[in-house]
Amino acid sequence: MTRLVLASSSPARLALLRSAGIEPEVVLPNTDEPALAAKARTENPNLSAQELVGLLAKAKAESVLHELSTEGALILGGDSALEFQGEILGKPHEPKVALERWAKLSGNVGVLHSGHYLIDNRDPANPVGAQMVSSTKVFFSKLSKQEIADYVATGEPLKVAGAFTIDGLGGAFIDRIEGDSHTVVGLSLKVLRELAAGFGVHYPSFWR
Amino acid sequence: MTRLVLASSSPARLALLRSAGIEPEVVLPNTDEPALAAKARTENPNLSAQELVGLLAKAKAESVLHELSTEGALILGGDSALEFQGEILGKPHEPKVALERWAKLSGNVGVLHSGHYLIDNRDPANPVGAQMVSSTKVFFSKLSKQEIADYVATGEPLKVAGAFTIDGLGGAFIDRIEGDSHTVVGLSLKVLRELAAGFGVHYPSFWR
Repeated sequence: MTRLVLASSSPARLALLRSAGIEPEVVLPNTDEPALAAKARTENPNLSAQELVGLLAKAKAESVLHELSTEGALILGGDSALEFQGEILGKPHEPKVALERWAKLSGNVGVLHSGHYLIDNRDPANPVGAQMVSSTKVFFSKLSKQEIADYVATGEPLKVAGAFTIDGLGGAFIDRIEGDSHTVVGLSLKVLRELAAGFGVHYPSFWR
Repeated sequence: MTRLVLASSSPARLALLRSAGIEPEVVLPNTDEPALAAKARTENPNLSAQELVGLLAKAKAESVLHELSTEGALILGGDSALEFQGEILGKPHEPKVALERWAKLSGNVGVLHSGHYLIDNRDPANPVGAQMVSSTKVFFSKLSKQEIADYVATGEPLKVAGAFTIDGLGGAFIDRIEGDSHTVVGLSLKVLRELAAGFGVHYPSFWR
């Protein structure tokens, strides 16, 4: 069995891995994401959503590399953002912001980007990293004002990138997607399989 | 709150509803699906996959309509099948069949059809039904023989329509989809929302 460390505090990423038969060791990343994002935008005002989630995924994975418990394991960092009408949308936090977002998302299309950074730390003297960003087109349903109000009132959209989930209450508010569905949750299992293969790791060896 | 009865024995449909904040009452359908499918094919040799899952979903929902516990509730029946290279593929049951299937699926494209039949039984003297079939294109990953063998050895593909899951171990073996991801699990939440709306039911009223 290959050990996997998940460097992410997202309950959705953890639940997804578990549903896919993988029980990762969770090591919370020690990163200030808003500060990192601001710094990256200062250095590159044209920073794309793909570049942003890629560098944050890398920062999360690298932030736990010094932890002794990650020695001998593969470390996965992940970060997600919704690109919508030229804007990069993270978590809304406030109900007011979530209501405004959904007024725009309703009946429209966005792209959910998930960055992945996998570090092979099986030889701690020589860790090696690889990055992959996966993007999925999301077609939001046309919702009534009451549906939006009821959804925001649940609190769920406040805590998630783009103000929606596909694997929670929000699942009924997406008409269709084009791409990997797990990317929308925040972690593409297919990308994990491909990144692991790049290190010579057979994906089924992750299964518990 | 609107009561929902799930007329399906599928653990995946139940888990999906729960993850979406809905706790349905499960009433197992009393239907002989292979016999119903054979009868339907005799009556119509050109029966499409869409027609098949639609009629089986209807048969499941109607089979529990006489149960007293369904009075006052909405009843949802569901059935799924994979259409692949002109064939309709159900559960493989045997490892040998699953291995043969995956040798073909690997690197190819299929369409997962899920039939839904919702009965409004809030007035048990006058139950009303409505049907909707949802179809999603599934692009299977190109897998190695060892990945296929290891996947089939888990037993998971034997028990599911089309020999794969998107919400279980099989999640890493799908490159992308075009359509509703929940349709691939066997129950489109968006379709449930639309069918319920047809009966004047506000979808958030299903949330527990």
